[in-house]
Amino acid sequence: MTRWPADTQERLKRTAIDLFSSRGFDAVTVAEIAEAAGVTERTFFRYFGDKREVLFTDQNAYNALFLDALADADATSPLALVEAALRGGGTFFPEQRRPMSRARQKVIDSSTALLERDSLKRGALVDALTTALVTRGVPPVAASLAAQSGSAVFHVAFTAWVSEGEDRSFIELLDDALAALRSLLA
Amino acid sequence: MTRWPADTQERLKRTAIDLFSSRGFDAVTVAEIAEAAGVTERTFFRYFGDKREVLFTDQNAYNALFLDALADADATSPLALVEAALRGGGTFFPEQRRPMSRARQKVIDSSTALLERDSLKRGALVDALTTALVTRGVPPVAASLAAQSGSAVFHVAFTAWVSEGEDRSFIELLDDALAALRSLLA
Repeated sequence: MTRWPADTQERLKRTAIDLFSSRGFDAVTVAEIAEAAGVTERTFFRYFGDKREVLFTDQNAYNALFLDALADADATSPLALVEAALRGGGTFFPEQRRPMSRARQKVIDSSTALLERDSLKRGALVDALTTALVTRGVPPVAASLAAQSGSAVFHVAFTAWVSEGEDRSFIELLDDALAALRSLLA
Repeated sequence: MTRWPADTQERLKRTAIDLFSSRGFDAVTVAEIAEAAGVTERTFFRYFGDKREVLFTDQNAYNALFLDALADADATSPLALVEAALRGGGTFFPEQRRPMSRARQKVIDSSTALLERDSLKRGALVDALTTALVTRGVPPVAASLAAQSGSAVFHVAFTAWVSEGEDRSFIELLDDALAALRSLLA
């Protein structure tokens, strides 16, 4: 059992992922998550709209890491701007987050509905990055492609990072994936 | 009203898209689609698991266009293989399909649940292309990035093709998007 953090939202999240991991996403009810976290169902719904949302709650803070890094970047080429954004996003995955990210991803991979939500969230980040690149003067088509290619690079790194037995750091895996993208057209 | 094709599945699809377009996806029931298409509800469920599936029914045939073209390609570089796959997929969008594709996309854009499904279907195609590239000897990371970049290119072309007022052919838009990807890393 993970140690309970003081913050209620974070505690609900960890409790839910523990329960989903051990008993399956579909089998666990909101009432059970609330009880295991020592709060009422009503408290659960103060933080999350539904059971699925527990797994996607950090999305705004997560996206902001990419967008803030892009806004701060001195680079001018579309790909260099995207690379800066990805390095910003990568700070969301320090080593101590790996066990939780791995457990969360296994839960998501077990359910089509969760995979759909996850896929849409990635799409929303791509759209936000595209808009940010256009704001920096990148033409729309190049912006969209750079954002989508960047998302692909990040996804490759993330998938490797949460896979069993992988112990390289997120940033190492991101560097490898960026190099692979660059060599794709070489 | 679109002319009714002889094939029942195709007729149900066109009828559903007409109804979704005029009254909104959520407001239309399966019973209404069946009635408007002149069949029973039971017949509807012989072709589709649910209302949402009507919009995603061609997926296997669609994916096969990409995968068959990739399998037939003489190219060896990951990107050239992907380009062959995209050109195969592009044959799914001749000019006469544009009004239907445009109507379908508007319905999808109107609903988070449909966008989630659409996003997941794109992800499934990326996975299938990645596997096909690995089968052709491309290393996994390069295969994944090439497939995802290719999907991005295709998505850019498709989004332009179904946008109001766009009259360039799908293949012209695909060529433009491929050129933009190439220049991204130049």
